[in-house]
Amino acid sequence: MKQTQLFTKTQKFTPKDEQSKNAKLLIRAGFIHKEMAGVYSYLPLGFRVLEKIKQIAREEMQKIDSEEIIMSGLQSKQIWQKSNRWDDNVVDVWFKSKLKSGKDIGFGWSHEEPITNMMINHINSYKDLPVSVFQFQTKLRNEERAKSGIMRGREFVMKDMYSYCKNKEELEEYYQRAIIAYNKFYNRVGIGEDTHIVFADGGAFTEFSHEFQTIAEVGEDLIFKVPNKDEYLNQEIVKLKIETKQDKNEINKEMQEIFGKGLIGVGVLAEFLKIDVEKTTKTILFKADDTRIIAVAVRGDRDVDEGKLRKIIRVDDLELLSEESIKELTGAKVGYAGMLNLPNNVEKYWDYSTDGRINFEMGANKTDYHNINVNFGVNIEKPKEFYDITKARDGDIEPLSGEKYKTYKATEVGNIFNFGTEKAKDMELSFVDERGENKPVYLGSYGIGITRVMGVIAEKFADEKGLVWPESIAPFKVHLISISQDKKAEELYKILKDNDIEVLWDNRDKRPGEKFADSDLIGIPYRVVLSNKSMEKGGIELKKRTEADGKIISTYELIELLKKY
Amino acid sequence: MKQTQLFTKTQKFTPKDEQSKNAKLLIRAGFIHKEMAGVYSYLPLGFRVLEKIKQIAREEMQKIDSEEIIMSGLQSKQIWQKSNRWDDNVVDVWFKSKLKSGKDIGFGWSHEEPITNMMINHINSYKDLPVSVFQFQTKLRNEERAKSGIMRGREFVMKDMYSYCKNKEELEEYYQRAIIAYNKFYNRVGIGEDTHIVFADGGAFTEFSHEFQTIAEVGEDLIFKVPNKDEYLNQEIVKLKIETKQDKNEINKEMQEIFGKGLIGVGVLAEFLKIDVEKTTKTILFKADDTRIIAVAVRGDRDVDEGKLRKIIRVDDLELLSEESIKELTGAKVGYAGMLNLPNNVEKYWDYSTDGRINFEMGANKTDYHNINVNFGVNIEKPKEFYDITKARDGDIEPLSGEKYKTYKATEVGNIFNFGTEKAKDMELSFVDERGENKPVYLGSYGIGITRVMGVIAEKFADEKGLVWPESIAPFKVHLISISQDKKAEELYKILKDNDIEVLWDNRDKRPGEKFADSDLIGIPYRVVLSNKSMEKGGIELKKRTEADGKIISTYELIELLKKY
Repeated sequence: MKQTQLFTKTQKFTPKDEQSKNAKLLIRAGFIHKEMAGVYSYLPLGFRVLEKIKQIAREEMQKIDSEEIIMSGLQSKQIWQKSNRWDDNVVDVWFKSKLKSGKDIGFGWSHEEPITNMMINHINSYKDLPVSVFQFQTKLRNEERAKSGIMRGREFVMKDMYSYCKNKEELEEYYQRAIIAYNKFYNRVGIGEDTHIVFADGGAFTEFSHEFQTIAEVGEDLIFKVPNKDEYLNQEIVKLKIETKQDKNEINKEMQEIFGKGLIGVGVLAEFLKIDVEKTTKTILFKADDTRIIAVAVRGDRDVDEGKLRKIIRVDDLELLSEESIKELTGAKVGYAGMLNLPNNVEKYWDYSTDGRINFEMGANKTDYHNINVNFGVNIEKPKEFYDITKARDGDIEPLSGEKYKTYKATEVGNIFNFGTEKAKDMELSFVDERGENKPVYLGSYGIGITRVMGVIAEKFADEKGLVWPESIAPFKVHLISISQDKKAEELYKILKDNDIEVLWDNRDKRPGEKFADSDLIGIPYRVVLSNKSMEKGGIELKKRTEADGKIISTYELIELLKKY
Repeated sequence: MKQTQLFTKTQKFTPKDEQSKNAKLLIRAGFIHKEMAGVYSYLPLGFRVLEKIKQIAREEMQKIDSEEIIMSGLQSKQIWQKSNRWDDNVVDVWFKSKLKSGKDIGFGWSHEEPITNMMINHINSYKDLPVSVFQFQTKLRNEERAKSGIMRGREFVMKDMYSYCKNKEELEEYYQRAIIAYNKFYNRVGIGEDTHIVFADGGAFTEFSHEFQTIAEVGEDLIFKVPNKDEYLNQEIVKLKIETKQDKNEINKEMQEIFGKGLIGVGVLAEFLKIDVEKTTKTILFKADDTRIIAVAVRGDRDVDEGKLRKIIRVDDLELLSEESIKELTGAKVGYAGMLNLPNNVEKYWDYSTDGRINFEMGANKTDYHNINVNFGVNIEKPKEFYDITKARDGDIEPLSGEKYKTYKATEVGNIFNFGTEKAKDMELSFVDERGENKPVYLGSYGIGITRVMGVIAEKFADEKGLVWPESIAPFKVHLISISQDKKAEELYKILKDNDIEVLWDNRDKRPGEKFADSDLIGIPYRVVLSNKSMEKGGIELKKRTEADGKIISTYELIELLKKY
């Protein structure tokens, strides 16, 4: 394509409210246009990248026998009510509107329910299974904040795939095939090396789900590598058994109630009380399933992982107790709760990190007061069991090996999920098995955020000059820049096109410096310069976007080289 | 593809509320799934057809130098307010919702405004023009009713293209190129012969817009062919000058007020009054632009064309006067209005059909009363001018040739529109011309309803057995049916695939009759049967979907034949 035909211009400025690096670069280079926070349009260069990523995903999904479809974006309330996911309190990202008749409709934020409902017409017998379908769908999610550019938008393109299987084994087999397809996809788009499959919480249906996480500075997640294994864990399933070392010669002291008002942070508290930070205790109160009250104690320098807690107490619906309820329950303002003297109906859970301590501190359940020198078996009954409820952080130790987890900032670029028979039961999708019995179908769900992948790649590989695209998804393979050699350039442009090499020819009437700067900003993998200077040196200058210096080669060599890559 | 791998099944039944032939057939054949009225998902067969139609459109738009993009579906209120099209009273098909912040957002029913707004970043100088962009966009429209299957949905895929030009001439040239591209598109998808470019009202900006209309039984429009010309007109721009023949020897009689209560229809009225129907008059009262009151008289057996009236009185905002207002204005109930004695502030327009009449009838502006023997120059001043305000119908005469227009039922499959500089002015998109002056950009807008085209084709070509796809957009080219010859069929399947011939192989364990019926329902252009019977006859049976009988040929002949088509 000739650059004079490309309608987009590179821009010096980006919208004032744009904070993310990926969107800033993509807007400046003319790949996208910002419509509003978290909503972007894809202009020709961006559209080309998007389509290439989609095509790679399409090919890999087809290889595992998945059939492409496209579901509607408009969705009906009744279908989502079957699985109790219409309610805004259950799913808080719905966009909803009304038909002229007054009937409620939703805009698809996900498609498990409608696809499973559609399948009722097509799955009857075990002979119809397994089935896998996928689509590239524009999802709409009413996110509270949208500050990550195209990495987390209110509107984004997702490749979602759904597999329907007869039994656990068949689903497990397809799930493994999907993992392989996903790895191939990430390899092909250029982030395979830094993308890891990460174990994550499986929710109500299964022990684990899996995320694909790309290690990147921009990452909002922290992933943990298990020592001596090629195994990565999502933060909330990192196993910990935090030991608190105590001087065994320390003697139990008498518990004391200490006045200590307005001490913000455990460090300040410990200093004021003249105790080690590890002797402090954080007591957090939760409401679960609207009826249960849960008190959790972790060491004062650590935080509660709500995901871990959910698993332990087996609930989905968990929230912090309100300030009012805390006051009612403990008799004290927020910040002074302790495990001592809580009402009997409160369920108490202690983290491993609180075990084995002598003379520890806790809130006194009295505003502005702390208990010190609390001891198990003296002031408070020693818990029968301690739990792993602490949020993992960098530097934590794997209990099994005693070695440190290695941590990485990473960003989620895909996830796969085993729903078991839960969704099929909700949606009443069943099949008749070999023995004539009615059985629910096993559902697997597999997502890749296509626009998100594009954002991650844009952000991860960019340098100070601009974007740097992997070859497989670059808008063009070659950026041909002609400087006072338009006739020769036109010939070369034709030769490249005849050899099926995608080329953007900067034939604009601009200064060389501007052309080079634009080329660096746009980030096409190979830059080919045809100028008087290059001609004098005997040919064409070829430079990779990732390299500082180019080399002079002949047209023949150029074509051979580009065809090889 | 093997049919055992296709997850969809043909269905005997369609949803109860489905009325349209296209959707019924497409659902039964497994191409689509109905989500709700006017909202359909596209399953593998339907998805393939859709993508083929899109690909043909894409190629033709690229040939006229248009660049593909994809705009967001979520749209901002501010942008649409600039052109006054956010208001539900102006655009009555908006779906709207709110962000968490409470901010209003719209779901794209069209994209002229956002695309034009985006262009502000990329069009500065005359050197940047012309520009053309297109997209395949899922549009959402909150239609009151949605009964035409995929021909008019609440959610549908549209190819919309927008051209930005320096001046009228440049736009006109691109407009002509677009017409050629559109004709090619309709030819390639198989409806070229029956698809005509039709002149339509150009609205406020230009004399004419153009529609592409496909002649079809299902058509909801009536198009008019100009006698002796290859020129088609949309109903509302058909020129008429309806003459009412009168006996010139008839003598003016005295006007009389006649009591005639509850006479429904002009036929009944004329009979009761013992006058010719052509002497009756229909007086219709309108409100225009909220301030003007318009009275229109047409001959009693004809109807007012509101489109024509809008043009004559130069307003967009026109509606029938309410019953209450009519009573207030005329002193009579609805049905008894006449042009005589209307207040002075009422603007009066007479259709040609009311000219030259003697002793005609009119409502008396008095409940249950009609005036007869009204005469121009005697009872009412002869209008200075008569107008063409009558809605055209089959059998009408072209004034120029005196010959009848030929009419056809047709369905709109595309439209192109010249916005002049209006939209650019609204959206403040301007460019600096050769002389350094700021000028507004000329906008052309070009739409093809992709899913609509699919629906028209499905409905137009179907026969009593099922769908009949044109080759270019069929989900597969060949439907291979094997009957107890699976091994031979597998070989043939491989040969077809090796020759890049798209084939669906019905390898299911079903009765021949069921396979043939499904094949007819699905509508793949070529049916190839491999059975003991065909083998005995010396080969393979090849039958076109459109033909009753097949013929036996060899594998070699089959491949040669299919490659030729």
